[in-house]
Amino acid sequence: MAAGMKRYEKLVHDIATAIRSGVLAPGEKLPSVRQACLNHKLSPATVFRAYYELENLGLIRAQPKSGYYVSSHAIKQLSAGNIPPPGQESTTVTISDLVFSILGSIKDQDTVPLGSAFPWPALFPLQRLSRSLAHATRDMGPAAIVESLPPGNHDLRRQIARRYLMQGIEADVDSIVITNGAFEALNLCLEAVTRPGDLVAIESPAFYGCLQALERLQLQAVEIPVDPVHGMDLDYLQSMLEKRPIRACWSMTSFQNPMGVSMSAERKQALVELLTHHQVPLIEDDVYGELYFGMQEHQPAKAYDKGGYVMHCSSFSKTLAPGYRIGWTLLPPRYKREVERLKVITSLSTSTISQAAIADFLKHGGYDRHLRKLRSCFELQQHQYLHLVARNFPVETQVTRPSGGYFLWVALPERVDALLLFQQALAEGVSIAPGPIFSARHECRHSIRINYSKPVDASVEQAFVTLGRLMAVMQP
Amino acid sequence: MAAGMKRYEKLVHDIATAIRSGVLAPGEKLPSVRQACLNHKLSPATVFRAYYELENLGLIRAQPKSGYYVSSHAIKQLSAGNIPPPGQESTTVTISDLVFSILGSIKDQDTVPLGSAFPWPALFPLQRLSRSLAHATRDMGPAAIVESLPPGNHDLRRQIARRYLMQGIEADVDSIVITNGAFEALNLCLEAVTRPGDLVAIESPAFYGCLQALERLQLQAVEIPVDPVHGMDLDYLQSMLEKRPIRACWSMTSFQNPMGVSMSAERKQALVELLTHHQVPLIEDDVYGELYFGMQEHQPAKAYDKGGYVMHCSSFSKTLAPGYRIGWTLLPPRYKREVERLKVITSLSTSTISQAAIADFLKHGGYDRHLRKLRSCFELQQHQYLHLVARNFPVETQVTRPSGGYFLWVALPERVDALLLFQQALAEGVSIAPGPIFSARHECRHSIRINYSKPVDASVEQAFVTLGRLMAVMQP
Repeated sequence: MAAGMKRYEKLVHDIATAIRSGVLAPGEKLPSVRQACLNHKLSPATVFRAYYELENLGLIRAQPKSGYYVSSHAIKQLSAGNIPPPGQESTTVTISDLVFSILGSIKDQDTVPLGSAFPWPALFPLQRLSRSLAHATRDMGPAAIVESLPPGNHDLRRQIARRYLMQGIEADVDSIVITNGAFEALNLCLEAVTRPGDLVAIESPAFYGCLQALERLQLQAVEIPVDPVHGMDLDYLQSMLEKRPIRACWSMTSFQNPMGVSMSAERKQALVELLTHHQVPLIEDDVYGELYFGMQEHQPAKAYDKGGYVMHCSSFSKTLAPGYRIGWTLLPPRYKREVERLKVITSLSTSTISQAAIADFLKHGGYDRHLRKLRSCFELQQHQYLHLVARNFPVETQVTRPSGGYFLWVALPERVDALLLFQQALAEGVSIAPGPIFSARHECRHSIRINYSKPVDASVEQAFVTLGRLMAVMQP
Repeated sequence: MAAGMKRYEKLVHDIATAIRSGVLAPGEKLPSVRQACLNHKLSPATVFRAYYELENLGLIRAQPKSGYYVSSHAIKQLSAGNIPPPGQESTTVTISDLVFSILGSIKDQDTVPLGSAFPWPALFPLQRLSRSLAHATRDMGPAAIVESLPPGNHDLRRQIARRYLMQGIEADVDSIVITNGAFEALNLCLEAVTRPGDLVAIESPAFYGCLQALERLQLQAVEIPVDPVHGMDLDYLQSMLEKRPIRACWSMTSFQNPMGVSMSAERKQALVELLTHHQVPLIEDDVYGELYFGMQEHQPAKAYDKGGYVMHCSSFSKTLAPGYRIGWTLLPPRYKREVERLKVITSLSTSTISQAAIADFLKHGGYDRHLRKLRSCFELQQHQYLHLVARNFPVETQVTRPSGGYFLWVALPERVDALLLFQQALAEGVSIAPGPIFSARHECRHSIRINYSKPVDASVEQAFVTLGRLMAVMQP
């Protein structure tokens, strides 16, 4: 017993340690107060005070007329500093066959799509969008086609610029290029600033689309570890920038896919300053930025872009209109012309009707109201999914608890092979996203990403039971 | 006078030669019958018979109470065999800056868009499409997004496969990949079968999008001359296939852009057999194939693809729904997986709503009826535009007379610099497409492409007057 620690504090400490280390599993019943008094030779008041404190910490919960239980949220959170630096400095990427076969698996409607990258589409105002579409196309003159050519529909760019301004970010209508989703924007930005063989700093683990883009353009990945609490390791990035001729940095600064971590405002600023110092462009993937929980907006790194090195890419696919394929990039002058030129020679234009429909919705559809609903829905569901993880997954499981987005990153015990789990689960109608698809070197072999955008129903609950059962019997 | 030629035939021959060589210009009045009798020492019956015959040939027309005039269609047609082979065997392509600045020019609504690549949008059933859109999105479940992922909307692919079957071409629904317009399809196909530095056989002159694609992928162009009557020079192609390690061939076999020429069925078959023999894939750009005049469908080269080397690419952008950005490629098994993989990692998916709307229109909208209307509209307008060329352009002008599509290729006198004409015309509110944008080596400096899809009105007539005036004063 540490010096000066009170009796009740000692009990809190012991139980909390047992919970965090997995000795006491989520959902397990604690000894009754009477039993605890006997076990620990304590007064009921001391035990009551300790249990009250543990409840406040969120580690246990009282169930009326039943007793105290280890809280389902008491599952161990992935903590800072437990991601090792990569074993080598740069890597040739060959990820897309793996990803491709996994993406194919989510197309089955009967599979519970915990592995999906898409938000659950029923959460989106499809009917209202359809009205915007009808409204926009009714008024659409023949000239709309030419007006929709890159950089894109002027109304839509104006609406996007207005949203930047409300966020305190300077955005000229003519600095925005509309694309087929954020993914095309990211690809075009990367292509604009690299040549085959170039080195690109990326996150580890990373969004697999980033890995695919590097593979397609024959670029070398310099993997920068992502800490589950702080985000990209800026010290490591700095050392790499000093050592290697890095041509670009691709980062998801808010609610990073797959880990869910956001960089603090200070870190975002430091990232931009570091890259600006080295004159390295930042390709900022900010598709989840609007999906923050609570009241505090997450400004992107673009907000600190004094030097004009940040290409900010986002879309409406995760927030409003999945399937409409409307994304954009806000470009500093030095990259604008080349990205727009690549857009023209890659896919010419973006669907006129999709552009017009989104422009109309942004004007009349109540986008901010929808976003508020969506955020609180995801926040609620994160709790429910954490509960399901805690109730069904091995006790050694660690998980992130992002403050936005719709992904959990789950570190499983070493005996669980994520790819094997993926295959076995899929055979039972459950998809998960296995860790290796997020790693240039196919690491993260004991981690998975869980999409919690689907409201919990019997199929989701059953999916977690299935995953738990499969993991329980896995041998090291 | 050739042996056995009758007197009236001699007169027909002399006048036809004078017209075809430009001695008699379109719109010029012929000698009256009385005058011709005197000049040629012929009977009125013989002159009448000759004039009647010339009228039948379309070389002259009778104007009641006025006399006979050289027909505006009598402008000299570009004939076979007058395209020289390229001076070098392969070329590094750097076209896109030029094209990019020219494309930008057509966005001004006040410019008469003779240089546009787009069909005039008012000719399309935008209202009916908008109904299809409303209908399709009203019934659209949340699952539509996942169902629209590559290879794409199943209904749409089924409708496209059905159209192939009606054309006598075997097409499995699963061999079709939906793309963001034909342009993305062509780009993906090219990327799937090449590596930077590879040689690709292309047409000369070529669609500038093809040149841009080669430039983007850092490929070398092997230019194969296109004859204005027969299309791609297959002998030259064969010699290049035998000499150089060509990795792919990109060809627009019907209504080639910019020349408008179609290969005959025999030549298409020969092209496929030649490439198959060398195991070189054909990327067939067939976006104008449905726009044939008369009753005879133009089967694509794909119809002869016994060996599985032809990737057939097309879209609805020129025929039904400009701006919807729906194209596709029909792939042989050996290329299917790689093209689909590239689609996923380039732009992920194609607009769900665009796909669904086109699928609905193909089912219920009367696509064939619309196509028939569009074809006869383009055919009529081709006559009108030929008339305008004849009336306003220098007499030495030669022009193609395509049997489909909506482009004329106009060979101007050598004293006319097409790029200069482009700039001067643009300053006066008229866009044209100058020849050099269709050439890897910026040749075709005295040719322009004219888009005749805009119905003739005062602005179009004035545009031709402007072009004529500008050319009239150009010095060699």
